[in-house]
Amino acid sequence: MTTFNRSILLASRPEGMPKRGNFQLITESIPIIQEEEMLIKSIYLSVDPYMRGRMRGIKTYVAPYELNEVLTGGVVGEVIDSKNPIYNVGDIVEGRLGWADYSVSNGKGIRKVDPNLAPISTALGVVGMPGLTAYFGLLNIGKPKVGETVVVSGAAGAVGTIVGQIAKLKGCRVVGIAGTEEKVKYLKKELDFDVVINYKTENVLESLKKACPNGVDIYFDNVGGEISDSVMSLINFYSRIVICGQISSYNKEAIATGPRVQGQLIQRSALMKGFIVGDYAEQFEEGYSQLGEWVKNGLLKYRENIVDGLENAPEAFMGLFRGDNIGKQLVRISN
Amino acid sequence: MTTFNRSILLASRPEGMPKRGNFQLITESIPIIQEEEMLIKSIYLSVDPYMRGRMRGIKTYVAPYELNEVLTGGVVGEVIDSKNPIYNVGDIVEGRLGWADYSVSNGKGIRKVDPNLAPISTALGVVGMPGLTAYFGLLNIGKPKVGETVVVSGAAGAVGTIVGQIAKLKGCRVVGIAGTEEKVKYLKKELDFDVVINYKTENVLESLKKACPNGVDIYFDNVGGEISDSVMSLINFYSRIVICGQISSYNKEAIATGPRVQGQLIQRSALMKGFIVGDYAEQFEEGYSQLGEWVKNGLLKYRENIVDGLENAPEAFMGLFRGDNIGKQLVRISN
Repeated sequence: MTTFNRSILLASRPEGMPKRGNFQLITESIPIIQEEEMLIKSIYLSVDPYMRGRMRGIKTYVAPYELNEVLTGGVVGEVIDSKNPIYNVGDIVEGRLGWADYSVSNGKGIRKVDPNLAPISTALGVVGMPGLTAYFGLLNIGKPKVGETVVVSGAAGAVGTIVGQIAKLKGCRVVGIAGTEEKVKYLKKELDFDVVINYKTENVLESLKKACPNGVDIYFDNVGGEISDSVMSLINFYSRIVICGQISSYNKEAIATGPRVQGQLIQRSALMKGFIVGDYAEQFEEGYSQLGEWVKNGLLKYRENIVDGLENAPEAFMGLFRGDNIGKQLVRISN
Repeated sequence: MTTFNRSILLASRPEGMPKRGNFQLITESIPIIQEEEMLIKSIYLSVDPYMRGRMRGIKTYVAPYELNEVLTGGVVGEVIDSKNPIYNVGDIVEGRLGWADYSVSNGKGIRKVDPNLAPISTALGVVGMPGLTAYFGLLNIGKPKVGETVVVSGAAGAVGTIVGQIAKLKGCRVVGIAGTEEKVKYLKKELDFDVVINYKTENVLESLKKACPNGVDIYFDNVGGEISDSVMSLINFYSRIVICGQISSYNKEAIATGPRVQGQLIQRSALMKGFIVGDYAEQFEEGYSQLGEWVKNGLLKYRENIVDGLENAPEAFMGLFRGDNIGKQLVRISN
């Protein structure tokens, strides 16, 4: 076993699209654990759009990343040394850890992953944070009813793919919006979305009008911007707009402007709610359990896009904003 | 008794601020009632900001006013002739009737008003549609908790004055935003608002920061536009934004643009909901009863601004957009 630990720091705050130079890879010794701590060898690292916000240096719902400190994110790894009474060597765990080969943890915010239930990578995807985000956002805020029309933007992403499938399980008509023909085909053919609109080649408003002859009851928004403007013009009475992400604006420095939605919300007695998955922490066990069961029964499909090598994590992260990934974007750190 | 009935038609659709020429007063014979109908002599007519939307000719939550037809709105009147089994001559009633000296109704959407409980004009204000709007918007959507900070825009209007007082009854800190020193003084001195900001003479954002050192938990918005932008920058985690009106934009032809709120809603896991009072129709009895009790016990104060003469109804309506009124704007049609 090597005694070196590579990790990736935030070297500078991105302006606009993140660039390779915003990240720095350093090599140090593997840290020594203290009482109550454990050493975790990273296997998979998750890169997620919300991380762009943390790079901005402004406190939102999570503290910003500090400059010249190791970036953190969702990691699945193996406990390789432990002075913690709950975690043993060989345990597979998931939690918010460093973009690094090895991390030290005292167990706070860490959970055990059962490798017999599903591939361990799914603890960062369909049975992890993105899955819970889709599950609670759609069910707790969107409250889908049989026969309703659900529109999902960022439909081919880690969250969007799950939102659409859960909506189908709940008896809804599902319309996805994505940005490549490959994504459109995947969502239609493999995930049974009713209609998928390619926002790069179609007139989104016209396609939406055709796809939603009875209007939009739930809009699960991962994207924001002009795509959302089109959806908002078609919302029904008592519709619910679930604001999960706004990836179209994450790389913009100024607050984006656009049509004010308040008048539309009054005209339709509609609800718009922002959330983060942590709002539903008390229900996580229920969520993990239900998502795991659906995956096991083949009711929930997922796709992972895996890049190899910690050194490629910045590139994988940047790819999120180019729309490279279908499903969950992961970085494999070790086997 | 005269046999003539004056009424006011929508002669043309306003562009921008409504003008006198958009209205036309005509004189006809008093209509003859049929079986099941009654003839109502108007006493008070309510003019309300939402009517501007109906003049636009686009279907929203209510059908638009038709050109060259009698405008309708909330009216309190006396039954002076009846072939309806439920309503008798002498009854005082309230309902959506014409901007006219006399109206015919079959009783649909009409309710009896008890003149012994409160002055009958309050059936169009504090114990009428504006009171219910304040009550259900604040309680059902805002869900105030003791010690929370509630900001109300359009605070001196028919709805705003009641929102602030109910919020005080629920143990909240109340910050109002209004546009004249007379209004500021009234809200502070007579209605016990904690802080009132004059948006015409103060820097709203700076004054709000001082008035809300713990941020904003509930924003009850009657106004929209830049005032709302300032409030939104101070919302707390899990805050509720109640979208009741957007009077600042009602006279604009294009959809107003401004900062997109979706990012703010995510950062604070905040809820924004539009509504109209009719959404809570099943709870109206509870609302009338509670509002009536508060008025009777002196816990809910109200002010009315009364203009005399049906012929002055257009002017009273236009005054809503100049911010002329404190409290409920009424037109007295007869005594």
